[in-house]
Amino acid sequence: MSDGFDRLWADLEPIGRHPGTGGYRRYTFGAADAELRSWFAGAAASRGLDVETDGNGNMWAWWGAPGPGAVVTGSHLDSVPDGGAFDGPLGVVSALEAVAELRRRGFAPARPVAVAVFAEEEGARFGVPCLGSRLLTGAIAPERAAALTDADGVTWAEAMAGAGFDPAGLGPDPERAGRIGAFVELHVEQGRALADTGDAVGAARSIWPHGRWRLEFTGRADHAGTTRLADRRDPMLPFARTVLAARSCAARNGAVATVGRVRVEPNGTNAVPSRVTAWLDARAPGAAELDAVVAGVTAEARAAAAEHGVRLAEAQESDSPLVEFSAELRDRVAAAAGGARGPVPVLPTGAGHDAGVLASVVPTAMLFVRNPTGVSHAPEEHAERADCHAGVTALADVLQDLAGE
Amino acid sequence: MSDGFDRLWADLEPIGRHPGTGGYRRYTFGAADAELRSWFAGAAASRGLDVETDGNGNMWAWWGAPGPGAVVTGSHLDSVPDGGAFDGPLGVVSALEAVAELRRRGFAPARPVAVAVFAEEEGARFGVPCLGSRLLTGAIAPERAAALTDADGVTWAEAMAGAGFDPAGLGPDPERAGRIGAFVELHVEQGRALADTGDAVGAARSIWPHGRWRLEFTGRADHAGTTRLADRRDPMLPFARTVLAARSCAARNGAVATVGRVRVEPNGTNAVPSRVTAWLDARAPGAAELDAVVAGVTAEARAAAAEHGVRLAEAQESDSPLVEFSAELRDRVAAAAGGARGPVPVLPTGAGHDAGVLASVVPTAMLFVRNPTGVSHAPEEHAERADCHAGVTALADVLQDLAGE
Repeated sequence: MSDGFDRLWADLEPIGRHPGTGGYRRYTFGAADAELRSWFAGAAASRGLDVETDGNGNMWAWWGAPGPGAVVTGSHLDSVPDGGAFDGPLGVVSALEAVAELRRRGFAPARPVAVAVFAEEEGARFGVPCLGSRLLTGAIAPERAAALTDADGVTWAEAMAGAGFDPAGLGPDPERAGRIGAFVELHVEQGRALADTGDAVGAARSIWPHGRWRLEFTGRADHAGTTRLADRRDPMLPFARTVLAARSCAARNGAVATVGRVRVEPNGTNAVPSRVTAWLDARAPGAAELDAVVAGVTAEARAAAAEHGVRLAEAQESDSPLVEFSAELRDRVAAAAGGARGPVPVLPTGAGHDAGVLASVVPTAMLFVRNPTGVSHAPEEHAERADCHAGVTALADVLQDLAGE
Repeated sequence: MSDGFDRLWADLEPIGRHPGTGGYRRYTFGAADAELRSWFAGAAASRGLDVETDGNGNMWAWWGAPGPGAVVTGSHLDSVPDGGAFDGPLGVVSALEAVAELRRRGFAPARPVAVAVFAEEEGARFGVPCLGSRLLTGAIAPERAAALTDADGVTWAEAMAGAGFDPAGLGPDPERAGRIGAFVELHVEQGRALADTGDAVGAARSIWPHGRWRLEFTGRADHAGTTRLADRRDPMLPFARTVLAARSCAARNGAVATVGRVRVEPNGTNAVPSRVTAWLDARAPGAAELDAVVAGVTAEARAAAAEHGVRLAEAQESDSPLVEFSAELRDRVAAAAGGARGPVPVLPTGAGHDAGVLASVVPTAMLFVRNPTGVSHAPEEHAERADCHAGVTALADVLQDLAGE
């Protein structure tokens, strides 16, 4: 098993890695994405799986004829800008290798088994995370998805067509979604809970509700040397107060909030900016805490904008309600993954996943593999190889349990 | 005279204007710059001037044989990102038209007269303002200038060679600088002092000392959903505190300070940034006030960085000491520009200019043309056409006075 995993991992490792930063730039429908799709198709075919791409750009590799009651596993291959190697790919590589492991065990599944790769999970290119699974389940309207634009103004539909897929196929796919009897996503942990408990593998209890908001501060460009402070309408100032408010409101509510993406126009050293656009990512244990964080941040943004004669436009770009994974499936998965040692630990997480989207339509569970530092969305993201192998074994055990009857 | 100005202005107006913003993107050695150089060479030649480009990329158009004691006027044609039409070009167009006006008056200069266009005055592409005049006068070492890079990592030397100029010619040019007996730069006003006094034209008393500092906050990229606040090293937070400190320190010292340019890495919505780089532009009436502003801002930046486990690197990118223009030349220019109505008003300014750089080696003066709103470095930057015409007349009167003996 170790050899199979290691070979797959080594093939995948160079694709989309930036030589300067060491981070990954795997953006949906870009050049790296085409390589990743071709890598997945080849790896799945060589394991005897039948590969198809659905109308939303998600890939499926079937062991047995596609049909209802299927046990589906998988994750995603796209990355955040300069992201790590594990977030997404670990689940895909582990899924392919778990299938190979089950074949080696001589296991004959009683249900169809599939490995799925969902498109644009990070939302790094088009702003809405889990776009492929949202489209599949009808959680986002195809017209809205088709019109989403990347930083260069290219729409999802245009990028999709450019990559050789027909955007006419976009939209809810109840037939495909209806085939899924259970979905299990394996993912690198993005915190340090397993490092603290000393376990290589855990299972998910819930995903914190979270969302993304765009705050656009429009002021007036002016000369940085000659415009009196009192005459300025400088959007950088209310933006800065909003950044600080995000941190303090999150701390007050036991939540997290981040301003990680900013666009400044015209972005010249000697010009007061005309516009600063900021993206707020906020997550909390419950909906009430999340609402409190966002209300606090926007109140400060509005007050600071008004004080500086700056116009503020607010838009929510994505909304992911609290996900409580099926208790029954979770307990079964935790038990199967732990085997004779007893159930693996069950943890909440602040990260969104395709599993969270699918949980609204089918029984869904997640397995986490230990991350020794907790670092994620960065080149330093890491999991020890022995833990990755343990993850494959746990996933194979889970699939064997779920597909065995 | 009006016709000549209006035609020149109309020819120049479309070059480098962005159709979306209406602002100008005239960057040194880019495509618009080549068009601007060709426009200037044609306009000067058609007025009987001999055009040359010096080893630093500055252009000179001579009326009479180049030689010592010359009266030189002119300005620059490059812009900040999405800048206005007047900052720079008004001085070049007015200079060309003032020469035409003197010819129409039948004036025979007793000294050589030249119109100069200085390269990279805004520093928008390579970060150091007044680069052409600094190189000419030896205020910056040619090796340092050659190695300056733009946002894509292209060096000044590479860009210069790409535009067809030999970077081997870079460096101090005492022969050319030594020809200048007096330099007079006409410029659109970048504040509202003349709008308040009711004058179309004014003269400069001084340029505030000013500089640019780069502040690089390096933290650690992390997942925005799963990294506890306490575990973060988020560089956006000390950056935000620095922005607010810049405003408060400037206000306390009767100065101005601006953070108009920011770079965020990796700039993803769901990633804590690994690095935020900010550029501080600060200007004050005197060196002591400027030092106090910069000391205050960097103290807050250091404290905030330390508090958040973020590394701070500081670098001064440019330094422009206080410029007091020659009192003798200033009074003569103000008198000639005002004519029978008496001397035009004399004003300080916070904006840097090539005239400020040249003032360290030759007698230098400036004329300002009224800006009704004071807006500058923005598409809305404006001067009424009648005021532009008045500026040409004033500049012609000044050149006639200075070159008449």
